Amino acid sequence: MRHRYTLVLSAMRLIRPSNRRHLTSIASPDSEFISYMNNKAKSINKALDDSVPLCNNSVPLWEPVLEVREAMRYTLLSGGKRVRPMLCLVASELVGGQESTAMPAACAVEMIHASSLILDDLPCMDDDSLRRGKPTNHIVFGEKTSILAANALMSLAVEQTLASTSLGVPAERVLRAVQEMARAVGTEGLVAGQAADLAGEKMSFENEDEGLRYLEFIHIHKTAVLVEAAAVVGAIMGGGSDEEIERLKSYARCVGLMFQVVDDVLDETKSSEELGKTAGKDLITGKLTYPKVMGVENAREYAKRLNREAQEHLQGFDSDKVVPLLSLADYIVKRQN
Amino acid sequence: MRHRYTLVLSAMRLIRPSNRRHLTSIASPDSEFISYMNNKAKSINKALDDSVPLCNNSVPLWEPVLEVREAMRYTLLSGGKRVRPMLCLVASELVGGQESTAMPAACAVEMIHASSLILDDLPCMDDDSLRRGKPTNHIVFGEKTSILAANALMSLAVEQTLASTSLGVPAERVLRAVQEMARAVGTEGLVAGQAADLAGEKMSFENEDEGLRYLEFIHIHKTAVLVEAAAVVGAIMGGGSDEEIERLKSYARCVGLMFQVVDDVLDETKSSEELGKTAGKDLITGKLTYPKVMGVENAREYAKRLNREAQEHLQGFDSDKVVPLLSLADYIVKRQN
Repeated sequence: MRHRYTLVLSAMRLIRPSNRRHLTSIASPDSEFISYMNNKAKSINKALDDSVPLCNNSVPLWEPVLEVREAMRYTLLSGGKRVRPMLCLVASELVGGQESTAMPAACAVEMIHASSLILDDLPCMDDDSLRRGKPTNHIVFGEKTSILAANALMSLAVEQTLASTSLGVPAERVLRAVQEMARAVGTEGLVAGQAADLAGEKMSFENEDEGLRYLEFIHIHKTAVLVEAAAVVGAIMGGGSDEEIERLKSYARCVGLMFQVVDDVLDETKSSEELGKTAGKDLITGKLTYPKVMGVENAREYAKRLNREAQEHLQGFDSDKVVPLLSLADYIVKRQN
Repeated sequence: MRHRYTLVLSAMRLIRPSNRRHLTSIASPDSEFISYMNNKAKSINKALDDSVPLCNNSVPLWEPVLEVREAMRYTLLSGGKRVRPMLCLVASELVGGQESTAMPAACAVEMIHASSLILDDLPCMDDDSLRRGKPTNHIVFGEKTSILAANALMSLAVEQTLASTSLGVPAERVLRAVQEMARAVGTEGLVAGQAADLAGEKMSFENEDEGLRYLEFIHIHKTAVLVEAAAVVGAIMGGGSDEEIERLKSYARCVGLMFQVVDDVLDETKSSEELGKTAGKDLITGKLTYPKVMGVENAREYAKRLNREAQEHLQGFDSDKVVPLLSLADYIVKRQN
């Protein structure tokens, strides 16, 4: 991975050696970055695959438990973009950490994400039947197994991260990392975001400003908090200073929000086939979205502004090591599905 | 609490000072023990109440988030027997710990239990409408809020326990405690038990022995593992030795299994009114139960045997300090609802 990383950096330097910080915004080396991302994603997928075995120390599982493991694997290994674990690994490396010691935490963040996707798709929540181009978890395994799998992914995330102590990560760091993850899940994180999102269509606001505050609340909690946690957890595991952790947190909050703004725009402008999930659904269900509140063009502009802000928060870090984070933000703002 | 505890011990000494270890089986000081339990339960209920506030640092919550907090409180504060947190506190004190430092972990164990109850009662799981004499969580708050509340309780459990470091508990102990809790939730704990339980009626077994192994698997995972974790986590937080932790774990496994055997017997022999939940339901739904596999009388005998075994595992501990654990086991085997 290190070798591949150096190659990408060299390729990027060739394009605009004088100002690498803004390189990706000006002449984006998409294919190199995507190849770098794909390689990182491969390590992540391998680690995720290993983390949910279909037996316990070669002992076969009872059929119903096996089914839960299969349901966990189904969503966890269904080829997401791996933005969160990637962010976790890159943040760790940026502050001097190793990929191997940050990997369990990176996987844990993806498990939390997968768990939240399973729950979001349930009939009593968003009632979605398509995700990443495939039938959703509850369609394949049934509601009860889905809910159990979501729960098990959440606890496995905690177990995985705690086990990092066996890789030599000090207990205090591990503890702080798990604390960040737990906070990102509950009523100050994903749960709050999803609750607010589901109730959004029934809410009435005194004025437009309050509506926008509510929309921002949804997306900060539903998306940005976990993206933030991914970067923060990576920086903690890598041994970053409090200041480094804070800067990465601010960067990640912008990226997280931007991710959601782009998602909303794509939902309104793309077909289901292009997206791999039910398109235009937010529009039909009357959900609050950025395009609905500010119009498609303004939402696109907002995403670009968030990208610039994200990049500004990275000032002060090593200009070479920071390239993947700049490219990641750029990739998100330009993505088409 | 310490004072009250001493009073109970003195009362017990008066009854049979020569053999306190078997005192509770012979001349059970029910009212003293129940008063001791009620006092412990009061501290626990106060701590649980404080742990799920209805605002964040005096900032009001958006209505949908407030509703999730209310749903969390509804089940968490609905007057359970508090067997698990009590076990946690008593185990901690037995190995020399303080009630105050074990309290967050004790609350965490109860949060995990409450979370699992909310999920178990869902329409796609056991579809129960009555629990502890009140409508179940999903009946009051709806499925989606229920599921979110269950999730939030799980992550709050982790947060709470991790925050014990601020009370001076060493990070290594806290990490180990959270690891025990996480393991008790996933596919080696509650999730496995619930999955096996839900599928039980559809399973076919090659022989009676296999059926009994399956039933044992359900109850070890659905009940005993968390009861075990409660004792183990208490002993860890209290600074117990590995040997002490092991003995308390064996005691708690017997108590956990016994709890379930008694539950099955009560379900078959009591009315809904007496139980505060739908009685005879296991019989109607064709679920595997101990009375169904071995008959009511044998199941009662089995519970008594488990009680004796549980008490044996406590040999070697201070004979005064161990009295609450002996009484707790006795209380469980004799309970009527």
